[in-house]
This record gives sequence, C-alpha cells and structure tokens, in this order.
Amino acid sequence: MAINSPIPVSADLKPVAGIELGYAEAGVRKANRKDLLVMKLAPTATVAGVFTLNRFCAAPVQICKTHLAQVSAAAPIRALIVNTGNANAGTGEEGLARANETCAELASLLGLKASQILPFSTGVILEPLPVDRLVAGLPQALERQAPAHWYEAAQAIMTTDTLPKAASRAVTIDGHRVTITGISKGAGMIKPNMATMLGFLATDAGISQTLLNDLVKDVADRSFNCVTIDGDTSTNDSFIVAASGKSSLPLITSVDQPAYLALREAMLDLAQEISQLIVRDGEGATKFITIKVEGGNSAAECRKIAYAIGHSPLVKTAFFASDPNLGRILAAIGYAGVDDLDVTLIDLYLDDVLVAKSGGRNPTYREEDGQRVMKKSEIVVRVLLGRGSADATVWTCDLSHDYVSINADYRS
Amino acid sequence: MAINSPIPVSADLKPVAGIELGYAEAGVRKANRKDLLVMKLAPTATVAGVFTLNRFCAAPVQICKTHLAQVSAAAPIRALIVNTGNANAGTGEEGLARANETCAELASLLGLKASQILPFSTGVILEPLPVDRLVAGLPQALERQAPAHWYEAAQAIMTTDTLPKAASRAVTIDGHRVTITGISKGAGMIKPNMATMLGFLATDAGISQTLLNDLVKDVADRSFNCVTIDGDTSTNDSFIVAASGKSSLPLITSVDQPAYLALREAMLDLAQEISQLIVRDGEGATKFITIKVEGGNSAAECRKIAYAIGHSPLVKTAFFASDPNLGRILAAIGYAGVDDLDVTLIDLYLDDVLVAKSGGRNPTYREEDGQRVMKKSEIVVRVLLGRGSADATVWTCDLSHDYVSINADYRS
Repeated sequence: MAINSPIPVSADLKPVAGIELGYAEAGVRKANRKDLLVMKLAPTATVAGVFTLNRFCAAPVQICKTHLAQVSAAAPIRALIVNTGNANAGTGEEGLARANETCAELASLLGLKASQILPFSTGVILEPLPVDRLVAGLPQALERQAPAHWYEAAQAIMTTDTLPKAASRAVTIDGHRVTITGISKGAGMIKPNMATMLGFLATDAGISQTLLNDLVKDVADRSFNCVTIDGDTSTNDSFIVAASGKSSLPLITSVDQPAYLALREAMLDLAQEISQLIVRDGEGATKFITIKVEGGNSAAECRKIAYAIGHSPLVKTAFFASDPNLGRILAAIGYAGVDDLDVTLIDLYLDDVLVAKSGGRNPTYREEDGQRVMKKSEIVVRVLLGRGSADATVWTCDLSHDYVSINADYRS
Repeated sequence: MAINSPIPVSADLKPVAGIELGYAEAGVRKANRKDLLVMKLAPTATVAGVFTLNRFCAAPVQICKTHLAQVSAAAPIRALIVNTGNANAGTGEEGLARANETCAELASLLGLKASQILPFSTGVILEPLPVDRLVAGLPQALERQAPAHWYEAAQAIMTTDTLPKAASRAVTIDGHRVTITGISKGAGMIKPNMATMLGFLATDAGISQTLLNDLVKDVADRSFNCVTIDGDTSTNDSFIVAASGKSSLPLITSVDQPAYLALREAMLDLAQEISQLIVRDGEGATKFITIKVEGGNSAAECRKIAYAIGHSPLVKTAFFASDPNLGRILAAIGYAGVDDLDVTLIDLYLDDVLVAKSGGRNPTYREEDGQRVMKKSEIVVRVLLGRGSADATVWTCDLSHDYVSINADYRS
C-alpha cells in the first residue's frame, strides 16, 4: 500500500544499451519467487558504488569494495549478481567464502575472472547463504538475459517491498540521446549512512572511472542518503551506478563539461525518485513526510535536526494518527544534539501553517489548521533555525501498527 | 500492564521526616483526577537536581535551575509544585510567566519567597499552562499535606503511566535509622540524557549542599540515565533529591565518610528500582530487556552500542514477537557509531545462549535456544566487545502495537 507511488509498468522502463538483465526463481528462502538477478555489463562500462557504513557490513559488501578497488581497463566489472532472502551478513569467514564462491561460479559461466563480478545480498541477517541454490539458479538467470528485463529485475530484489521500484529517464545531451534506468529495493532497516538499501542505476552514457567515483557519492548524498524509515542502517546497503558508454555521446571525463551537468541533473532526479519510492513503500507507511530544515549554520546540523524529527517514534505515531501533537516536533529539535541552539529563534511550519514562532506557540495558530494538514497523505515539515543559510532535506514516513506487524512477523 | 511490577501499597511507602505531601484534583487537563502535587520540605533540607538536556527545555525546568542557583542558608528550597496534564514546554515567555506565577502564589500561601519553590510540569507540549486552575487547586493541596501521602503523590504525577511508581528503603547507618522514599513517572518520551521523566527522592538523612549536588548526578547517571523506551528525550525531565536532615544521623559532608557510601548505595538501589519501574510500565511494553555491553575501551562507547540496540525499532519489534531474529542486534551494534570497532572480536549472548561468536553466527547456536530465551518476559542481551575493560548497562522494553495505539491516541 505504497503512498502515491506509481506502479512501474514494464513498457515504461527504457532499456539501456550495454546492459542486460536476467533473473531466476532460485528458492533462496521461498519457492517460486524471483530472488536472483544477474546484470551483465558491456566491456566498455565503468562502475562505481557507495556502501553501508555499518561495521557489521555484509560479506558481499566487503567483496564489492575489494573488486572495485582491483578494477583495471583489462579487467573491468562485467556483471552484478544479486540475491534476496538472505543478507549474508553476520556470517564471518564462512560468509565471505560463500559470496566468493558465487562470484567464481558466475565468472566461470561467463568466461570472466571472479574479480569482475560484484555480489549483493539482502534479506535475513545471521543465516548461512544457501550458495548451492544460488549457483543452481545461475543458468536460468543467464538464459533469461535481455535489455528489457528491468521490471523483472526490480521484482527479483524485493524483500518486504509491496511494489517493485523502478524508473527511467531519457534526455538529449549535446544532441545525443542518453538513457538512465534504475531500480531499488528496501522498506525497512532504512536509514541513510550510505544508500541504506540496494539501488542500481545504469546509463548508456560513458563516464570516466574517476569521475564516476565522485558522481556516485554526490548522487547518493542527495537521494538515497536523505531517506529514513526506521533509523536502522542496514548491513548490506549498496548503491551502484554503471555507465556502459554505448550512447553516441562522447565520453565524459570532467565536471566542467556541460554534458556532465546535464547528465548529473537527470541522474539525480531519477535517484531521488527511486529513493523516495522506498519511503513511499516504507513498512506500514501511510504518509510521506518531507522534512526541510533551513537557516542553519551548516548542512550537517540541519541534517541532525531533520533526522531527529524523522526518527522520533512519537512524531511518527502522531503523523499516523493525523494528530497535530506538534510539541513532539519541538522536543525532537531540542534533543537533536545541536548544543548551542537558540530555540527562541525557531519557527515551525506544517505545510503553510505557522505552528511555532520564536520558539513558542504561534499566537494565531489554530488547532484546526494543524489538523487540516495532518490529514493529508503528503506533508512538509519546515523548520527555520534563524542562525545561518545552510539547509537539509530528509524524506520519511509515519509509524503505524503495520510497521510493528510486518517486523514482528518478518521471518515467519 | 506493567512487566513484573509490584503494585506499590501505600502502607509500604515509608514517610520521610521533614517531608509532607499534599495533592489536588485541579482539572488541569481532565476532571476528577489527581493532577497537582505540593511537596513541602523542612527548613533544614538540602535539595539538588539534574534536568533534561533538551534545548527546548520547559519553562519549569528553566525556573528550577534559576531557583537552585539562588539557594542560600537564609532562603532554602521549601516546596516543590508538580502538575501533570500540561508540560508548559514550547510556550516561550508566556510559559515562563505562568510557571513563575504558580511559584509566587504557592510562596504567598506558605509565607515564602517564590525562589524557594521548585516547579515541575509534565504532559502535552506546546499548550498554554492553565495557571488559574493550578492556583485554584493549591488550597486543597495544602489542606491535604501529610508525611504519609507518598502513594497519592505518585498518582498525582502520572501521565500515560498505568501504575503509580514508588518505593522505599530503610537502612541503619552508624546505628541511626535512615529512610529514603522515591516516586517517579514516565512511560513515553523516555531516553536518558538526564533523567527523562520526573523523579523525586527524599531522605531524612542530612547531606551538605555541595555533596548533594554531586550525589544527585552520580545517582542519576547510574539509574534514570540508563533507561530508554523510545529514544525521545523529553523537554521536562527532572530528577530531584531532597535531604531533610531530620534523621539522628549526623550531617554527611564528604564522600570519604562510610555513612556516605552506605547512604549512596541505598539511594542508588532505590533509584534503580524506580527508574526501572518506568521501563516496566513503558508504553505498550511486554518485555523488560537489560542490555549489557562489556569489554569496551570506554563506558561511553559501551553506552553508544547499548543505546543503538535499545533504540532500534527492528530489535524492539523482534522482542515483541519473541522472534530470535538476532542479526538485527548485530546490525545495531554495527551502526552505533563506534568507528574503529573490530566486529570479528564480538560475542553476543541472549541470557546464557551464545548467539554470535567472533562476529559471526556461533556454529553450535540452535534457533530453539534463542527461541526459548525470546519467549521470556525478562531478557538479558550481553555484548562482549573484546577490546577493553569498560562496560555499560541500559534497561529498555520492546515495541508493540500498543505503543503505536497509545501514542496515536494520547491527546484524544
């Protein structure tokens, strides 16, 4: 029951030249569901990623980092393998061995080195990866390779998601048509500190490795790193951008090229859409909340306050109840950890309604105005700190009975 | 439905010489409930407190700090006034004026200066304090003054609490009988960063002002600052210790006196009991969880990890469901913000069951052993970091459907 989410339609997801996708029902955790994805990349592709900061980062995350560090022109990344149903996290040396075995098997089938494969896993933590089932599913996933399989790919990486998450952009840059298509998953254990879910973006534009390494961080910081559902940073979060270089647009190598700016804008727009889809499909979510904190001394302090609001169970349950119990937002601002905050400078808006002014209740605020906004399914909370010009935005959702039900039952 | 909480019995709560308590039904928010408490202190009493670190600290908290800073032998603190139903927080200058008016009215009735009164409020934030109703309730609260009214006092400060919270100790120190009785309230918006609720402890021992200032911090750090329910630090949290000096025990002035150590031990024991009562009565709580983190480099890093576990909605819902989905605990350890943590040194116990060893699943761990512990109503999570000798303990509860219901309906 995602909030105002368009249901992606396969025909709307544009193939990206140089990228093929195949999937299988490997039975990782449950039978008869798509749970294995293999994404093949053209030899011309550059690939970069950002990963969870969780110290218990999963075995596949550790291997991704190693393989990306070893990339050379002679041995580029050529395929991604993704499974759902098992996170292969908290699994120690054995988990690394199993993820490595998966890479080796796929490499062998494709005539590549294992280091040319990036592995990803999502699902339950602390359980052994059923590597035999993954390996047994690989031939099916390779038989089904096609540039048109983005919709099925989005399905194959779902966990508690109620909808596949995918979107496309086609833009014309310097007269050349460029396509970007992305998929993501994640509905719980979602907090930024890196991408906090799985997200894969592919474009047929060509981008040099160095530039792509910076671009992926830049895009993640302004999209996937701005969403939060429950404040739990996953062990497996990974966000990958692959640039196949199959478009007729010349290779982009510098941030100073106008083509770079045009591509970055389109990519950021797409990444924001698919990262917001995660919040719209947040576990049990009934409301999509945008939290804008403005007038800060630094973006960092604005983010601190935005996250304190976005993580407060009391604020989130008030949104669920459509109850304008807005003092809870002030309390969250107050404990966000900005030690020298002068609360007498703070204004709080709910959409266009000025709730608190100069740190106290706005004398003209009427409960029915707050109530009117709280009943909406999309709400903007705006906090003006009155101490500088920095700002930050975070997207989040409410906390409902269904969140508890989903997470109390997840493994059952 | 508090977890294994004894229901306090009025007869078990020992009067403290030099302390009288009176209460009223002032109609602050609802009619016909005890919602106003006046606690009178003997002129010999010393008083010290610790308060919320929330930047949006409530008007009464600000006034308490001012009045405590002005204390002199000629004008000691002589009374506490506490209301429930309205927090008088997020109320700006007007809120300060109303809290000051309350103090002035009580001072006038008692023949004191306003600065000899400490005011406390708890309830809804961002709404004007109905000072007229408080003032109108004062005569009733003063008529009802008695040393035996601890049980009624505990009732008069409840918000969403399902049970009044109170306990007593009687100890013999150097042959002198000393009594300590305490009350507390709080079932939501509970996170340490100071006392995170209201707590009042009184003893008939005499303690010098300087020593009491240190003792109140010491006790709070080891009791009220170790409990968390939802991670929301309230705007109003206050913890007060009053020492009336009416016992025959000579005045305690130094930490080196054996009498100090004996009194501190009894007071800490009592403070831990009444702070844990808050968790046992946590909003919607069905389980009482003790989180011990050991083997750290510092107590601070142990506390960070203990709180990350204690605040994780995913961990808390797993406890609610009695589901040994224990990878969620590893994930919380990993994102707690201890940057140089070597996860391969970490062991995780659930009661006596070794779940994870050296950062991975314990090879001999069996799901049914985890399941057996998860079904209990009191559970100890023990994390061994393997990098030092510091430790920390946090007490928390699970996250249930009822938490959402209570907080979605709180103001209704």
